[in-house]
Amino acid sequence: MEHILTQLRALERRLFAYHYALALIEVDESTAAPTDSAEGRSEAVGLLSMEQYQLLTGDELGGLLEAAAGLELDPQAAAEVRELRRARDRYTKIPPAEFAADSRVFPLSQTAWHRAKASSDFSLFAPWLEKIVEIRRRWAGYLAPEKDVYDVWLDYYQNGLTMAQADPFFAALRGKIVPLLAEIQKRGRPIRTDFLCQDWPLDAQDKLSHFVMEAMGLTRAHCVLGESEHPFTSALYDGDVRITTHYLPDNMVSSLYSVIHEGGHALYERHVSPALRYTVLGEGSCSSVHESQSRLFENYIGRSRAFLSFLWPELLRLFPRQLEGVSCEEFYRAVNLVTPSLIRTDADELTYPLHIMVRYELEKQLLHGELSVRDLPAAWNRMYREYLGIEVPDDAHGVLQDIHWAGGDLGYFPTYALGTAYAAQMTAAMKDRFDLEGCCARGDLAPVREYLAGTIWQYGKQREPEELIRAGCGGAFDPGFFTRYLEEKYRELYAL
Amino acid sequence: MEHILTQLRALERRLFAYHYALALIEVDESTAAPTDSAEGRSEAVGLLSMEQYQLLTGDELGGLLEAAAGLELDPQAAAEVRELRRARDRYTKIPPAEFAADSRVFPLSQTAWHRAKASSDFSLFAPWLEKIVEIRRRWAGYLAPEKDVYDVWLDYYQNGLTMAQADPFFAALRGKIVPLLAEIQKRGRPIRTDFLCQDWPLDAQDKLSHFVMEAMGLTRAHCVLGESEHPFTSALYDGDVRITTHYLPDNMVSSLYSVIHEGGHALYERHVSPALRYTVLGEGSCSSVHESQSRLFENYIGRSRAFLSFLWPELLRLFPRQLEGVSCEEFYRAVNLVTPSLIRTDADELTYPLHIMVRYELEKQLLHGELSVRDLPAAWNRMYREYLGIEVPDDAHGVLQDIHWAGGDLGYFPTYALGTAYAAQMTAAMKDRFDLEGCCARGDLAPVREYLAGTIWQYGKQREPEELIRAGCGGAFDPGFFTRYLEEKYRELYAL
Repeated sequence: MEHILTQLRALERRLFAYHYALALIEVDESTAAPTDSAEGRSEAVGLLSMEQYQLLTGDELGGLLEAAAGLELDPQAAAEVRELRRARDRYTKIPPAEFAADSRVFPLSQTAWHRAKASSDFSLFAPWLEKIVEIRRRWAGYLAPEKDVYDVWLDYYQNGLTMAQADPFFAALRGKIVPLLAEIQKRGRPIRTDFLCQDWPLDAQDKLSHFVMEAMGLTRAHCVLGESEHPFTSALYDGDVRITTHYLPDNMVSSLYSVIHEGGHALYERHVSPALRYTVLGEGSCSSVHESQSRLFENYIGRSRAFLSFLWPELLRLFPRQLEGVSCEEFYRAVNLVTPSLIRTDADELTYPLHIMVRYELEKQLLHGELSVRDLPAAWNRMYREYLGIEVPDDAHGVLQDIHWAGGDLGYFPTYALGTAYAAQMTAAMKDRFDLEGCCARGDLAPVREYLAGTIWQYGKQREPEELIRAGCGGAFDPGFFTRYLEEKYRELYAL
Repeated sequence: MEHILTQLRALERRLFAYHYALALIEVDESTAAPTDSAEGRSEAVGLLSMEQYQLLTGDELGGLLEAAAGLELDPQAAAEVRELRRARDRYTKIPPAEFAADSRVFPLSQTAWHRAKASSDFSLFAPWLEKIVEIRRRWAGYLAPEKDVYDVWLDYYQNGLTMAQADPFFAALRGKIVPLLAEIQKRGRPIRTDFLCQDWPLDAQDKLSHFVMEAMGLTRAHCVLGESEHPFTSALYDGDVRITTHYLPDNMVSSLYSVIHEGGHALYERHVSPALRYTVLGEGSCSSVHESQSRLFENYIGRSRAFLSFLWPELLRLFPRQLEGVSCEEFYRAVNLVTPSLIRTDADELTYPLHIMVRYELEKQLLHGELSVRDLPAAWNRMYREYLGIEVPDDAHGVLQDIHWAGGDLGYFPTYALGTAYAAQMTAAMKDRFDLEGCCARGDLAPVREYLAGTIWQYGKQREPEELIRAGCGGAFDPGFFTRYLEEKYRELYAL
């Protein structure tokens, strides 16, 4: 037994080395690489990915997993075997020839999507999306023929998630958010936003980023901030996490909340137990759990009155001219403004779940064969009218706005909304246990880190998402925490 | 035959992927990585290097090289086989157990060197240097038992180089430089340097870097500039080259010439023929040929009156206050100031070879067993007195200043001086062929790039160093070009 575990862990270390290299190449591409250097990069990425694929699908791992099946394993080792088997299954259940042929579709499809979005011409992307829906339906048959096809893909992005859980979740959200939004639009008190769009010097914005990172407990020793077109977080391992932001000269709030959001992801990765280092468990769990952490810091802490009262003196120090005559309360209201918008990534806390709901319904129908790709744009536009009350002017600002489907990711979007809802309940759980508001007002987030590290972060991928969510939430997940939070916050904010 | 070449090139592509990943990890370490992230990095580097080692030493490559031995190959394929065999020999001729055990010495020795240098205590480093001398002597016996041990290591860093070539080269240099230096110190006209040390704003220094890179023909499409403690160049492949500089707030000249020096290395890598891409030939030749290119741009172009006359308007635009009352001629003289110094990397063009000569003599004696490590510091200090006329105050500013020996690199230093001398002759060859001064004065370096790409750059590692040097020099190498250049330039500069 000792022997098999030793061999498994040696193989996990080799997988780690490829993960490290591939993650760094991706970070570099978005932050530092020459603009016209894609050819060599894609050659290197292709070859390194192939080595990784061969390790995961090869006979060596096959034999070790078979040998491990008969052993009594401690919880960590059992989880390593579980995750290795899961990763291996995802590759080996698809016939290799189909896997290879289908894998070539995704980059081509993304290229077509870029062109389609640039010219707002859905017809350029439609044939590729048809191929992708077909591939995902076919693969679902290989991965779990006994299951509903959309359930297969929900489970792919959050192990254990089903429509049976997601349907009532979204129904509950819709039932609360749509009427609340209508009420805000009808009779909410106006919010002052005139000061948001002005000249915010980039060096002061950069100083603000570092002030916020320090307050969150992220130091240059193990976490650095870069700049990229789209903000992201990448963990090479728990001791080396990269986050990025995108500075806009006329909008300081955008980068501020990017840094807090990515900082939440980074804290999670930084606190995965070093005992899991170099194993397949040594990173954060699935997307929805990860998103719960970033949203918790971005929305529940970062957009709270308490945390903004802590930030306010620093904001005044960095932007004395820009914030002259603005009160902290006015700033609080402005960064919590509700306004239905066309673009998901620009959406506020209240309308964001509506954007997800549209995608959830549509990808479900696509995978179930109830909606054809041809009819997708019209369906999209209809739902934006119904849920958000706005007209989509063209497909670039509609169905073509996100890259996810072009990369094959159908079933991913729900994790964004779920993560946000988990975070509401986790925030409530913290409030039950300690004075969260007081901590935020003092800029002392140590108790937050302690709670989340204790319930979620330290376990990496060792525990399954459901277990992590339950521990973080302090009980079974209940979307009522999220809807009540939205009701209370926005009724007060808009004086309803 | 087709089949064997196809397999060889597939293997070379896999080697390329490891080169790409390892080079990027090294760039990242020096430019962007969190300060305390070495543990995961060294784990990944160790594992990726091991994969690379196994590819190079494995049976697959062995069989292919054996099969290729009987084939009629075109020049490129023959060179690929030659370089693969050379790389393989370097690993396989050392018994694997000794190779593994000895390889662990180098990082430990470098750590000891860092500590020794920080406390200027040679005794902390001496036992490690003894080990390294022993390893290099022993390995030379494996690599080429028929050869002199120092010749083995000269050849290691420049294929074909021998003491029979280097001895008369250094003797000729010494015979010219030592008396010229004495004359300059005795009766050279004073040079004004008061303006060099002042406040040079970093953003203007950065603008200057980009102006110089553009003049050299390096654009963001394929070459980016970063910042690091020690400037360096790293090519991921010919389409992606990274250079770095180090900005000093009180010294603008330091970064200026770092950028031109590294820019020379970068131009070389950028112009390796795309036909060699992803093969073992797809990068610049040995260190001395590489150094000839960086020194050519740094010294023969960058420190020339002609190029400085082109740069002058931009310098005045970027530093109007700092350069008030300074003439271009005064600037030219200041950046060519001759002054014997303790530290090699701070040395001027004239005294630089003397620093190398000390190291050449000492490492030769160490490897020949004619000098013990214990006696090394005294020998070092004696030679600095004799060659440069200066007293070494402590070992940190003496024998401990460079990391090379700690990493096992004995035989590497001569390539710096040789490269500089090659560049003198290459510059003369260009002057014979076109109006180099006119090109520099106009900031039009296209003819320089054309000449060097045609004779050297395009061939990557396909041609042997000797052939490249001969082509670039327009004939057999003759150190007289270098010594005459120094005599003429510095007699005029110092009015002797």
